[in-house]
Amino acid sequence: MSLLDNCGLGHLVLCPKVDFAEAFAPSNIALIKYWGKRDVGYNLPQTDSISVSLDPKGAQTKLTAAKCDQLILNDQILESQDPVFIRLFSYLDALFPCRVPLAVHSHSSVAIAAGLASSASGFAALVLALDKLCQWQLEPTELSILARLGSGSAARSIYPKAWVRMHKGQDPSGRDSFATAYPGGFSDACLGVVPISCAKKSVSSTKAMGDSVATSPFYGQWPRLVEDDIGAFEEALGEDDFLKAAHIAERNSLAMHALMHTSDPALNYDLPETLAAKHKVWQLRTQGLGVYFTQDAGPNIKLLFLKDELDVLLEHFPQMDVLHLPTA
Amino acid sequence: MSLLDNCGLGHLVLCPKVDFAEAFAPSNIALIKYWGKRDVGYNLPQTDSISVSLDPKGAQTKLTAAKCDQLILNDQILESQDPVFIRLFSYLDALFPCRVPLAVHSHSSVAIAAGLASSASGFAALVLALDKLCQWQLEPTELSILARLGSGSAARSIYPKAWVRMHKGQDPSGRDSFATAYPGGFSDACLGVVPISCAKKSVSSTKAMGDSVATSPFYGQWPRLVEDDIGAFEEALGEDDFLKAAHIAERNSLAMHALMHTSDPALNYDLPETLAAKHKVWQLRTQGLGVYFTQDAGPNIKLLFLKDELDVLLEHFPQMDVLHLPTA
Repeated sequence: MSLLDNCGLGHLVLCPKVDFAEAFAPSNIALIKYWGKRDVGYNLPQTDSISVSLDPKGAQTKLTAAKCDQLILNDQILESQDPVFIRLFSYLDALFPCRVPLAVHSHSSVAIAAGLASSASGFAALVLALDKLCQWQLEPTELSILARLGSGSAARSIYPKAWVRMHKGQDPSGRDSFATAYPGGFSDACLGVVPISCAKKSVSSTKAMGDSVATSPFYGQWPRLVEDDIGAFEEALGEDDFLKAAHIAERNSLAMHALMHTSDPALNYDLPETLAAKHKVWQLRTQGLGVYFTQDAGPNIKLLFLKDELDVLLEHFPQMDVLHLPTA
Repeated sequence: MSLLDNCGLGHLVLCPKVDFAEAFAPSNIALIKYWGKRDVGYNLPQTDSISVSLDPKGAQTKLTAAKCDQLILNDQILESQDPVFIRLFSYLDALFPCRVPLAVHSHSSVAIAAGLASSASGFAALVLALDKLCQWQLEPTELSILARLGSGSAARSIYPKAWVRMHKGQDPSGRDSFATAYPGGFSDACLGVVPISCAKKSVSSTKAMGDSVATSPFYGQWPRLVEDDIGAFEEALGEDDFLKAAHIAERNSLAMHALMHTSDPALNYDLPETLAAKHKVWQLRTQGLGVYFTQDAGPNIKLLFLKDELDVLLEHFPQMDVLHLPTA
């Protein structure tokens, strides 16, 4: 039995039907966070999560059959001992124990391993390209399952320009653990990436999640908290009230980081500059500005606000990189 | 019925028996924190706590009968509209509705309202001086109750040079909510105050506690967490294992701050320099140094370590103000 048999996808074989295939997958950011796995082998989450695609940021990946495995990332040939190389081809080997070698050319427009979900778009683009290369014609939910096996948050990256909900599912092998896209979105919603540092993170998300689940005295409250936040966020989505959603997102992000702060060993991804940026957001809000933040497993923060506030915010955060989020 | 009747101290009258009286009370710092009140009027805590006296830091207070109320704090005459003036004499009025006016001369060796427990030593020194002025000859537990009515953490400041446990008690009026001193202590235990800022805190502890109790999704876990930490801390005290106690104290402090981070509105007392100091502590620990921190409702942190490490730590934190903690 392979990993795929257990997921109901045992019929798939990695056999190219065309010379090459290419696909793009957006990066995504969770506004109701994913923190903690119920199964590490299958990357099954403890809770649902809600994210938004960050097109045009993401990964563009081209696949061709080759004499031996090759990975070219942002025009650099990676050595076969490189952790990124190992992670990618170990994933393919686990899913397709008998497969042809592949040359993978990928361009990522987000910094690698700095809390900007580079592995999410990377694995999603790989899966989308595989589906074209082998002409599997899989359903989005099936593509989402395949991507999840590479990286938990990659399950949410197969939908371009969309608000997405990841379903944790119940099945021990994860047949029902996949993402779906919401039909609607928010009007005039913006996200600004405030760059603090693109240094590689010191502790991987998987290790950090494991520590939180095992040692934070507050982890037991997390699943119910997420459930409540998802309900409130969907209500805000139905009302097209982005600032309400952004407030829920900020609280959810702070709660996730509180889990890390209370893990043993304690983990705090903030740099002093991160904290200064958060204090500035809180201060601007007391002045009446509608701006919130969210933060992933890294030092950068992302601001959430409506288009009307963009000019004022650019004065305070001139280095901010702005994305317009999907509308209805 | 006055406040004091309900506490079993209704027989006390504020009637000077001598011309003047003077007393010192140490500042104290909780290593297992007090965060949240079960009754705001009586300053009754939700949980027990454990603290250590910070002699010689504290407040020295002299009382004399006077024609009208007067407060001289660190050689400065305070106006009757000053919040510190109002807080002190409102407290005396609530306890002793019919009393003589008093001149209060107080010297505090800690910054006011900067998370270094200035109100704790202030109210404790006031109560100790009142006891002498009126020759009440109260028991320590009774003095602790009186001090608690001024400031929750003042209940722990009536014991000089001691490790102290505050008992939350059960009684609705707080007859059984007072501090007691442990007979023992730790060998070679040091505390270093790392000064970050002595600016007055933006949010009072009482307001911050109220927000945490009412809005943090993690507050429900706090009472059990404190109970567990108190048990483990007392075990470390019995074994004279200060580093074990310091580890528990750091985790407890991080959990308390996680409650504030997850309150609505969120509250984060860290300045960027606070965070930089914490990261330095964690880094030194990975290098094998036995050093932990604790943090109260303010930006300063206090390091906990054994005397042997003092010289090395002074190289990293040259501005640190070092206190030797009580031994057995």
